[in-house]
Amino acid sequence: MATQPSSDASPAEIQDAVAATTARLLIVCPDRPGIISAVSTFLYHHGANITDFDQHASDPDAGTFFLRMEFQTPGLDCSWDTLKSNFEARVARQYGMEWQLTLAADRKRMAIMVSRHDHALLELLWRTMGGDLPAVIPMVISNHDDLRGEVERFGIPYHHIPVTRDNKVEAEQQALQLLEGQADLVVLARYMQILSPDFVQHYPHRIINIHHSFLPAFVGANPYQQAWERGVKLIGATSHYVTDDLDQGPIIEQNVARVSHRHSPAELKALGQEVERGVLLRAVRWHLEDRVIVDGNKTVVFTR
Amino acid sequence: MATQPSSDASPAEIQDAVAATTARLLIVCPDRPGIISAVSTFLYHHGANITDFDQHASDPDAGTFFLRMEFQTPGLDCSWDTLKSNFEARVARQYGMEWQLTLAADRKRMAIMVSRHDHALLELLWRTMGGDLPAVIPMVISNHDDLRGEVERFGIPYHHIPVTRDNKVEAEQQALQLLEGQADLVVLARYMQILSPDFVQHYPHRIINIHHSFLPAFVGANPYQQAWERGVKLIGATSHYVTDDLDQGPIIEQNVARVSHRHSPAELKALGQEVERGVLLRAVRWHLEDRVIVDGNKTVVFTR
Amino acid sequence: MATQPSSDASPAEIQDAVAATTARLLIVCPDRPGIISAVSTFLYHHGANITDFDQHASDPDAGTFFLRMEFQTPGLDCSWDTLKSNFEARVARQYGMEWQLTLAADRKRMAIMVSRHDHALLELLWRTMGGDLPAVIPMVISNHDDLRGEVERFGIPYHHIPVTRDNKVEAEQQALQLLEGQADLVVLARYMQILSPDFVQHYPHRIINIHHSFLPAFVGANPYQQAWERGVKLIGATSHYVTDDLDQGPIIEQNVARVSHRHSPAELKALGQEVERGVLLRAVRWHLEDRVIVDGNKTVVFTR
Amino acid sequence: MATQPSSDASPAEIQDAVAATTARLLIVCPDRPGIISAVSTFLYHHGANITDFDQHASDPDAGTFFLRMEFQTPGLDCSWDTLKSNFEARVARQYGMEWQLTLAADRKRMAIMVSRHDHALLELLWRTMGGDLPAVIPMVISNHDDLRGEVERFGIPYHHIPVTRDNKVEAEQQALQLLEGQADLVVLARYMQILSPDFVQHYPHRIINIHHSFLPAFVGANPYQQAWERGVKLIGATSHYVTDDLDQGPIIEQNVARVSHRHSPAELKALGQEVERGVLLRAVRWHLEDRVIVDGNKTVVFTR
Repeated sequence: MATQPSSDASPAEIQDAVAATTARLLIVCPDRPGIISAVSTFLYHHGANITDFDQHASDPDAGTFFLRMEFQTPGLDCSWDTLKSNFEARVARQYGMEWQLTLAADRKRMAIMVSRHDHALLELLWRTMGGDLPAVIPMVISNHDDLRGEVERFGIPYHHIPVTRDNKVEAEQQALQLLEGQADLVVLARYMQILSPDFVQHYPHRIINIHHSFLPAFVGANPYQQAWERGVKLIGATSHYVTDDLDQGPIIEQNVARVSHRHSPAELKALGQEVERGVLLRAVRWHLEDRVIVDGNKTVVFTR
Repeated sequence: MATQPSSDASPAEIQDAVAATTARLLIVCPDRPGIISAVSTFLYHHGANITDFDQHASDPDAGTFFLRMEFQTPGLDCSWDTLKSNFEARVARQYGMEWQLTLAADRKRMAIMVSRHDHALLELLWRTMGGDLPAVIPMVISNHDDLRGEVERFGIPYHHIPVTRDNKVEAEQQALQLLEGQADLVVLARYMQILSPDFVQHYPHRIINIHHSFLPAFVGANPYQQAWERGVKLIGATSHYVTDDLDQGPIIEQNVARVSHRHSPAELKALGQEVERGVLLRAVRWHLEDRVIVDGNKTVVFTR
Repeated sequence: MATQPSSDASPAEIQDAVAATTARLLIVCPDRPGIISAVSTFLYHHGANITDFDQHASDPDAGTFFLRMEFQTPGLDCSWDTLKSNFEARVARQYGMEWQLTLAADRKRMAIMVSRHDHALLELLWRTMGGDLPAVIPMVISNHDDLRGEVERFGIPYHHIPVTRDNKVEAEQQALQLLEGQADLVVLARYMQILSPDFVQHYPHRIINIHHSFLPAFVGANPYQQAWERGVKLIGATSHYVTDDLDQGPIIEQNVARVSHRHSPAELKALGQEVERGVLLRAVRWHLEDRVIVDGNKTVVFTR
Repeated sequence: MATQPSSDASPAEIQDAVAATTARLLIVCPDRPGIISAVSTFLYHHGANITDFDQHASDPDAGTFFLRMEFQTPGLDCSWDTLKSNFEARVARQYGMEWQLTLAADRKRMAIMVSRHDHALLELLWRTMGGDLPAVIPMVISNHDDLRGEVERFGIPYHHIPVTRDNKVEAEQQALQLLEGQADLVVLARYMQILSPDFVQHYPHRIINIHHSFLPAFVGANPYQQAWERGVKLIGATSHYVTDDLDQGPIIEQNVARVSHRHSPAELKALGQEVERGVLLRAVRWHLEDRVIVDGNKTVVFTR
């Protein structure tokens, strides 16, 4: 009420404008002197203007080196494919780099799997469809049919694949077939089935889960009930990459909320869902913006 | 993924069950000994079981006394109307109390006014329609037509009342007629027009605004631009009751988020909208649950 | 620099003035209607002016009722001892109450046990000697002699009781003899020896420990190293009453701090010590102000 | 109690070991392509191993470029002075850089000015003398004699320079003479006198103040009283460089704490002092570690 509407563009519009000319380079390699010099000189000579830069060394002596750069592409003196092949030939090979060059304009395809709770799903749908989260959603897969309406009203395909004790393998195969070639990332937005190692290995470090506790506290079932019984004063949520070890994958983001003796288990759950959706949103956003690099069972997250 | 679906009821269902038997008593009066004894004894003798209790004295000597009680109604020995008239006759009059007895099951009617930003509106719609926020929404009024689709898909009437320099008085009259007898509360969910004192006096301490700064910093237009220019390290939002003095009404809730030199004005705005919707949601919830009492130009907020 | 020195009294002076006339009543009893009426009417008839009031019911049906009141004593119509015996005879017995009446002016005697880390100890010493924490410190006991100088310069006796694998029982006996009749509360300000059940039973719910993790995560040794290896994004600290079960006692307070891949184990430790001293300070303060009631293996904490 | 003492070195010892071989480079210059390549190649060719790197561009087009690097010195192929002169000749001149090369082992000399409140002073003394804050304290100057004992027990000279309405100019001259050649930084740890522009210009962007409000809210006298009267729900503190404009200098750090209607002005003050000492500590630490670069009336802060 207090102020006049600002005349500036919406956040989504601004994001689009920036994305159109932004590229990103991620590097992991053995740490040794000269890497930054080699990479930045290569980019400079090809006309790339570095606009963001972050790096991390896991250990001062003989550790692993992690680097993330953003640069602007309008001044490039060669094609995108040439830049990539030149980078491999002239820099990456010499330093033993694993690397990745991406264009911000190439939005990742994010499939969502969900059971019955809608809070995390809706957050992702709302943000993506509003242009705030740089992704496209090719499909939602659920073991229940409850959330079909919410999803289809955005024009997104909704696949109901019931899971029972007996059809678990077939159900996963069905999901894998649907996802085949359609998804760069799978987000488990409170999907209450445990994925098999076979499923997981199709998307290494590309399945993101939201766990409803502050891991490693309260693994297993009913964490809010467990938290209530233990009488903790903070509850939390954890977003992590899914690996074969249940609840043990590399943590991307966590957060907590303050609670007291006045909160019932149901109230812990309601409050926790707020934390869950915020934590998942940040973890997914960072993955979509190529800000997360897995380092063994941990993550390096180059936030702003 | 880690846990099985819990079998318990949804937060909305639990809230409904509790609300069905819960009543609330709010009191403001000059402070003097014996008030708690008089009130609790009255309720006890009428079969009310007090389940929550909070109080505040503005000053140890000769200040104002504020009290909020929740009690359960199943054991009441009289009708609701009789309880109210007896309370006035036997307790309130003697202590000079202003008081209010409400049933949690009687959901307040919350009209929403909005301009073009949808983040605060959608938060309120989503929460209310999902049963999490104990209100009914009789209508949304806007000076633009942009958000009609989002509102009407929930079956809520959307009234477009354009406001220009010349029709301001008429536009307010039109809004007042629509609201007449339909609203217990008006929420300005980023409504970018200044309401006249005439409008405000129709809903004393019943219009809640969200201001996009940490008041009293950055009053006036474009607070995020102002914040960026000043180089603050935290940005904030403030929810307050609307009074005749612009941005000066009693503050109900505030919150902040951490920012750095890396945030552009547009990014401050995007981040700030997250803060805004959380702050407004809490302020509205507290009002709906009869947790806020105005004390001059301040508020007493009996949170959990 | 911007403002003139304020002329008001120091926080310690204000606290003293308030404490001189303030009494506190804590109650635990089976929940049933009429308790608030009975207690508040009793106090009113004896001239006590209730200035703060908080209550909690563990369960709406047949649960336990917890109550904390602060009241002012100048208008009391009887002696403090008479008030207590009357309360037992006329109210407490009828409702099966466990209760406690204390005067804020009677500062609790807080013995401190510590090993080598000084951060938690210094926080408590500094706050207590500055008048901010309402306690007296009769002694500090340590299994090392390192911190003697810091303690003795405040005029507080420092007892060095070395603990080895062989003399554990004797060392505890020596500590118990020193504490005998001298301490209302024992604070373990990073005391790195496990107390025996025999020791603990001398001070039931009157030994407060600070654990350097967000319990129940990272029980056992080297929690910061554990946290680093797991790659968590928040580290925490927990203050709890000591029971026979290691790290399992009722939690009084917890807090966390945000960390990233950039923090080494040593940096987690340094940051964690900040969290530890804040958490312990709040837990101790709440105990000293009679704000904590143990409810099984949980706590009810009536904070402001 | 739960864990055995860890065998690792203290944070101060670890910090010393790292500092012995760490150097830092700060750069400000007009933004143009090639800077990172030029700087990193220069360091690489001189045997410096870059271990931390951060940069910022104020504007994508024609803005200012800010850079901070940490590198390890053991492999340097030349003297420290040669490195500096070569950097100026071969890199800095070409790009129009303002730059600064420092050795972490060269601790800055931090003079402290204080009036009567001891909380901020003690935090700085405690941290510095414990080795946690990388500084040396050559002196404390106060317009009162109250805190002499606290300061002198650490062996630090304490200079009492009373300030009256009539001797303000002489008092400042006396302080400037004491500081002459002795201080790299002046910290106003609640010094309640306004410094003249003449004083300020002796230490441009090298005087750090702690203001007891969340600037720009509540400038001027008695901010806690102002905050109480306005009924805010958060109080804050701000640390900034001192300039000629009172309370208007570049902000380095801010933080807030949640308050409610229950807090008296005196309680706001007590709680605020906690916030103040934390905010000032972080701001001073960042300055001492060469993490802050002034950008007009704002700061770029390269935190970890």
